[in-house]
Amino acid sequence: MKINVIEPVYMENDKLFIIDQTLLPNEEKYIELCNREEVWRAIKILAVRGAPAIGVAAAYGMYIDIKDLEFNSSDEIHARITDTGDYLKSSRPTAVNLFWAINRITKKSAALEEGLCVDLPEKEKIAYIKEEIFKEVDLIRKEDIESSINMGEYGLSLLKPNMGILTHCNAGTLATAKYGTCLASIYLGQEKGYNFKVYADETRPLLQGARLTAFELDKAGIDVTLICDNMAGTVMKKGLIDAVIVGCDRAAANGDGANKIGTMQVAIMAKEFGIPFYMYAPISTIDLETPTGADIVIEERDGEEIGELWYEKPMTPTTVKKFNPAFDVTDSKYITAYITDKGIVYPPYDEGFKKIMEIEQNEEKNKDVI
Amino acid sequence: MKINVIEPVYMENDKLFIIDQTLLPNEEKYIELCNREEVWRAIKILAVRGAPAIGVAAAYGMYIDIKDLEFNSSDEIHARITDTGDYLKSSRPTAVNLFWAINRITKKSAALEEGLCVDLPEKEKIAYIKEEIFKEVDLIRKEDIESSINMGEYGLSLLKPNMGILTHCNAGTLATAKYGTCLASIYLGQEKGYNFKVYADETRPLLQGARLTAFELDKAGIDVTLICDNMAGTVMKKGLIDAVIVGCDRAAANGDGANKIGTMQVAIMAKEFGIPFYMYAPISTIDLETPTGADIVIEERDGEEIGELWYEKPMTPTTVKKFNPAFDVTDSKYITAYITDKGIVYPPYDEGFKKIMEIEQNEEKNKDVI
Repeated sequence: MKINVIEPVYMENDKLFIIDQTLLPNEEKYIELCNREEVWRAIKILAVRGAPAIGVAAAYGMYIDIKDLEFNSSDEIHARITDTGDYLKSSRPTAVNLFWAINRITKKSAALEEGLCVDLPEKEKIAYIKEEIFKEVDLIRKEDIESSINMGEYGLSLLKPNMGILTHCNAGTLATAKYGTCLASIYLGQEKGYNFKVYADETRPLLQGARLTAFELDKAGIDVTLICDNMAGTVMKKGLIDAVIVGCDRAAANGDGANKIGTMQVAIMAKEFGIPFYMYAPISTIDLETPTGADIVIEERDGEEIGELWYEKPMTPTTVKKFNPAFDVTDSKYITAYITDKGIVYPPYDEGFKKIMEIEQNEEKNKDVI
Repeated sequence: MKINVIEPVYMENDKLFIIDQTLLPNEEKYIELCNREEVWRAIKILAVRGAPAIGVAAAYGMYIDIKDLEFNSSDEIHARITDTGDYLKSSRPTAVNLFWAINRITKKSAALEEGLCVDLPEKEKIAYIKEEIFKEVDLIRKEDIESSINMGEYGLSLLKPNMGILTHCNAGTLATAKYGTCLASIYLGQEKGYNFKVYADETRPLLQGARLTAFELDKAGIDVTLICDNMAGTVMKKGLIDAVIVGCDRAAANGDGANKIGTMQVAIMAKEFGIPFYMYAPISTIDLETPTGADIVIEERDGEEIGELWYEKPMTPTTVKKFNPAFDVTDSKYITAYITDKGIVYPPYDEGFKKIMEIEQNEEKNKDVI
């Protein structure tokens, strides 16, 4: 059974669309981004968010920019691509995937120039470059979907029909090109009739669970129940949860994993109640250069995110101090397995991560040979 | 050093005042309650809340009602007291302390009649009854403060200066006549210069931690930092917490304790990080008739409390299911000690509770003898 999974960034009839996530969950509106300025702004104001989705949007933005412009020479188009890349990078300077996607397009642009037959008339050259850039941009999107499907399938192999599944924050289709990281298992399972009962932590302070996860699962017809973060232990104790699935922002070499604040608590509780805890990490998030979770610097955000709930009425005196760490690190001992796009990794993670990275490197090498 | 601790219900110049908790934390307003209708409404709309504070307010309400009324006979005043008691009980029919306080006043009224010298002129009889009812009402308040001070001192004996202390929900002065249950230890410690660093869980969905605990501690000049419920594990892991103190709605005979939703998670986390977890329970909340926590029925409240954050803009689709248990039960194995108004109880709780109840019963007997 095919289900309707939101695609937060896509092109249709040569036009770029995104779902405006600033309006969720109260309004589901798709907007067209017509030029690089609109793409820049959409990333800036978080109308598109989630590392992979930002990368895809930025790459599309680079194509949207050149597609209708007229150029007199291939040098001009390459210069424009570089310029747009630098411009779009300034929209969210800490987003690694944004930089990765933009660099991939600028490199492709340079590689095209090298490989071009210099005898081609300039006009044809320019048309060819536009076409090849579009292919590369679309490949980024397709690869992201493939990566999601891989994680989804690997994770699904550990789950059974009718399970109760708890998730925290949003590692769903709204954060990627399609399907998400951990929620990919839910969508793919739903297509196979697994009928999961999903419990979504609301995820304070920014409520990604309530605003995004509950929204996207509900929209796809999946049985989802929203709870406050402090109720996760209760649903586990009541026997409603058979597995916990969460995303991962960065995994250290020893298997400690950073993710949205609150993830560690869920993991500790899962261990206490004997429930498996799976962290979904595309191998791009595994950082062998970071020895342990203690080496991961945790961003502290403005306390007003806590004090001014849902950005409106203050619900605590402004004089009260707030502590607002955006992420926490889950110790590897609480993590049953990592679900990557290249396979499942079990403890000991230091060995498992090295092995999966070798698989990845060999695949890349083989690609180069082809 | 004396500190300024809020008294949420008090009489001054024969007038009854409460702090209107529906306006907190954005407005600190004391309002006069002039008649029984106003007392009824204040309890109904939660302008006064917290089991002991409700009991005190209702008792005062019974005095406020009779104090300026004219009666022709003592029968009339007793009838009025009974009537007002029944009326005030309807304001919050599930509040045990409300019923307890009202019944105490109606019993006192009956006992006065029996003990009255029948030869007294009716007018003097009525004045005498009014006076004695006031004394009883005020005694309820004084006993509640004494109970808070006892719990505060017992708890304080387990704490040390400069400790970092985590609390959940509001078991503070705003819930009692003064000082609170677990927060009494903070106030009494502050008066002794203990300089605690308090971390307050905001306590979703109704935000008692943000609205009440952070407010009352900040107001008293205590170092308090507000965190989201999902950050408790992080402050523990960072080494900022030396003890956890929480209130208790009902303790079962085996030492399992029901309290605001989220308490169990904090207790599990405290155990994981080797931090003592103290539950403050006036012996009136120890229920030897309830064998274990599994026998405590947990209230489930309307899901819209989760879906409509801070009662305003919806932050999840209305179609999404919500699960909203108001309390949870902390297994006795996570509780380091119970702090009661009669002393500290350590495991095994079944024995400890029985012993402390015997002390209480002996004290009551001795009172009767006197």
